[in-house]
Amino acid sequence: MKIITLGTGAAVPTLQRGHPAVLLWWQGKYFLFDCGEATQVQFRKAGLKFSRLEAIFISHLHGDHILGIMGLLMSLELSERKKPLHIYGPAGIKEYIETSTKLMNTVFNFEINITEIRADFNLEEKGYSIRALPLEHRVFSLGYSFREHNHPGKFYIEKAREFCIPEGPLYGKLQRGENIELPDGRIINSHEVVGKAVEGRKIVYCGDTRPCLNAVKLAEEADLLIYEGTFEPDALDKAKISGHSTTLEAAEIALKAKVKKLIITHISSRYHDEEHLLGKSTEIFPSTILARDLMEVEIPLKREE
Amino acid sequence: MKIITLGTGAAVPTLQRGHPAVLLWWQGKYFLFDCGEATQVQFRKAGLKFSRLEAIFISHLHGDHILGIMGLLMSLELSERKKPLHIYGPAGIKEYIETSTKLMNTVFNFEINITEIRADFNLEEKGYSIRALPLEHRVFSLGYSFREHNHPGKFYIEKAREFCIPEGPLYGKLQRGENIELPDGRIINSHEVVGKAVEGRKIVYCGDTRPCLNAVKLAEEADLLIYEGTFEPDALDKAKISGHSTTLEAAEIALKAKVKKLIITHISSRYHDEEHLLGKSTEIFPSTILARDLMEVEIPLKREE
Repeated sequence: MKIITLGTGAAVPTLQRGHPAVLLWWQGKYFLFDCGEATQVQFRKAGLKFSRLEAIFISHLHGDHILGIMGLLMSLELSERKKPLHIYGPAGIKEYIETSTKLMNTVFNFEINITEIRADFNLEEKGYSIRALPLEHRVFSLGYSFREHNHPGKFYIEKAREFCIPEGPLYGKLQRGENIELPDGRIINSHEVVGKAVEGRKIVYCGDTRPCLNAVKLAEEADLLIYEGTFEPDALDKAKISGHSTTLEAAEIALKAKVKKLIITHISSRYHDEEHLLGKSTEIFPSTILARDLMEVEIPLKREE
Repeated sequence: MKIITLGTGAAVPTLQRGHPAVLLWWQGKYFLFDCGEATQVQFRKAGLKFSRLEAIFISHLHGDHILGIMGLLMSLELSERKKPLHIYGPAGIKEYIETSTKLMNTVFNFEINITEIRADFNLEEKGYSIRALPLEHRVFSLGYSFREHNHPGKFYIEKAREFCIPEGPLYGKLQRGENIELPDGRIINSHEVVGKAVEGRKIVYCGDTRPCLNAVKLAEEADLLIYEGTFEPDALDKAKISGHSTTLEAAEIALKAKVKKLIITHISSRYHDEEHLLGKSTEIFPSTILARDLMEVEIPLKREE
């Protein structure tokens, strides 16, 4: 499981920082959070495979967060995609994609499932769950969490043999945490032969937002929080007016939510001096990384307790 | 006067060739032909100034030719543009821009004048004229010519003095080609004191098209023709099916239209070998240049005859 920050700039892209796009790579699948202009170019620069893209999650409908969608869809079509693509985002995303598709005389030969999210949202998929909560920006803006389901604990085969459990489907039941009854009437509890489940990892992405309770709630105990820090700590007024956060506020959210690691992204084009931009953020929350375009961050599996 | 080929790829951008965009730099103003995704990034790479952009001419509404418009408009807004921008293109361009603007909650504080072109089109501006003709593609596609007005010939001040013409407004009249009457009744013909007018330069851009009469008509005697050559000469079938031209067909159009120079652009992502792509095109038309991203080509002023 890893994160690739494809684009780490804000409204004005620079030669160093493209428009926002963050990719989560999980079990051979890609989950994309926001899709700014030229995201498909970043895909190519990172050597990513278009076919692995599973879903796109859009935080809000400002241009810098969505202008790469149509180009990316076109590249999926040209790569002869057949499997469906899921797109989640605020109301309006469907009209944007459908109008653009119509006017550009484009036909997509794969299904595009668009889900418009208007309030708290939960989605259960095989192996992971998605949650979205509204944040606070100038327009309706969503934060997303991706939570991997727990991994089954280690199966102690020697113990299973000691209990004379016949190999086969009963092993699977035990591993999934179920208790079983043997032909001779003995009951075996799962925890007698299976170690503790390994907790799934949790990744949270907050696009454009002022610090808010929902951001803390969503990020609670995440392994990684990717959060916007458009401005330096001293530019709080600018952050308030524009509905953004400072890097210090990003660190405060990370601290409050007790996350393990913080990536600050969505950096205004005015900053070239990283130390100045971060200010005392790293004192407040030392596990802070300032995103760079095409940066990769691994999120290791938690160790069995 | 120069051309900068900002993006020289076709439908699928590569790390070497971005989506189509060709910039004409004339008298401190920029005229942009097509505006593919990430054109604003190319602007920055080329060190161009957003404020100099005068007009955008769109060949047709396929995504690879228009997906950079909204991002470019946003960057113009963020650079606090006040002067109007002119956009010309096929019917539908207005709806695309207006719908995107509405859905992205964007406000532009400068005028965007959109002209939809449905047939032959002529426009006279100060110092230049624009002509558009329909070409032959899978959707309605336009070619554009930019023709600079003739420059007045050289004013021979010694001759004017010999004729005892008083300095002042009469000099101006003569330079503009008018004949004048002096206070003593003598008539002076303009050509007696002014050299031949210098013919204005003509640049023609043909986006996606099959070879056609209108392309030849439009390009007639141009100083520079920028024409698509998506495919190698041997891939004529592919060119026909997709409504494109081969590089050989580009050279044939240049030859028929008696242009001075040809730039071939809109290169399919499949080609890495330039010699193979061009084939015998340069034998047919030796003044052929294969476009590269960010390439600059000067078009010198014609010498006085």
